[in-house]
Amino acid sequence: MDKEMPAGSLALRALDVAPRKKPSNYPEPFYSRVSGREKRQLGDAFGINNFGVNLTRLFPGGESALLHRHSKQDEFIYILEGTPTLVTDQEEVVLSPGDCAGFPAQGVAHQLVNRTEADVLYLEIGDRTKGDEGSYPKDDLMAKLGPDGQWQFTHKDGTPY
Amino acid sequence: MDKEMPAGSLALRALDVAPRKKPSNYPEPFYSRVSGREKRQLGDAFGINNFGVNLTRLFPGGESALLHRHSKQDEFIYILEGTPTLVTDQEEVVLSPGDCAGFPAQGVAHQLVNRTEADVLYLEIGDRTKGDEGSYPKDDLMAKLGPDGQWQFTHKDGTPY
Repeated sequence: MDKEMPAGSLALRALDVAPRKKPSNYPEPFYSRVSGREKRQLGDAFGINNFGVNLTRLFPGGESALLHRHSKQDEFIYILEGTPTLVTDQEEVVLSPGDCAGFPAQGVAHQLVNRTEADVLYLEIGDRTKGDEGSYPKDDLMAKLGPDGQWQFTHKDGTPY
Repeated sequence: MDKEMPAGSLALRALDVAPRKKPSNYPEPFYSRVSGREKRQLGDAFGINNFGVNLTRLFPGGESALLHRHSKQDEFIYILEGTPTLVTDQEEVVLSPGDCAGFPAQGVAHQLVNRTEADVLYLEIGDRTKGDEGSYPKDDLMAKLGPDGQWQFTHKDGTPY
């Protein structure tokens, strides 16, 4: 028998999943630069391990991340609401609902920026391949995924923040 | 400089990606049972390797797949349009746009069925962990992911179709 979907059961309304409490793992001054985003970890809510799916909101002025690329992990985004600007180290394009983009490992560096007065809502998907590294062409930052699954950030010369 | 998004460039309108030509890899009689679906392989369009992202349309009466579970791969769905029924080996729930569900490996067996008169459009995401097997509690079918990345289907006693 069909029935109304109970929250926390087989399925969830994505917006009912609580936002992640820690807005970012970046050290300052980068932490503050991504304060205009809010991530709901949808995949984790179901015990998904092999990849992450976030429902991410960018408030006006918000940035999805620093301009970055991954060494081993792929990323994919699908726009649900709003018109963010996809900024890369090659070019920029304005996206609309129903647009999508994929970022294979070692591809273009990328970030989403909300230059509008309205919220942006999008899905972001990334796998969890071990040994991944994040590189940031415009910032003095590098990231290595530790064996505990946590990102370790340093200056580009390896010194800690 | 911002500019209009060119198809085939950094980003794509998801509905502009051509549907997969082969509707299903199932042997008959199962092949025909999923003829009411259409898959656009969004991740592949960008060269994403570690996971797949499909934009899938279920026509009225369409089924996403046979009732199944994976041994190693996780799956996730996000409903964009329509009200499909999520059928599992435990219970059923009717989903709406903005609802999502995740299916960890070895979890509940699942399928989406469109029992309405309108199309259903949703995103489905799955990783590509090697050595995966699909099991089908209601059908005489089993599937093993071959080293070539192709599914090999047999009867449950191992005999070929």
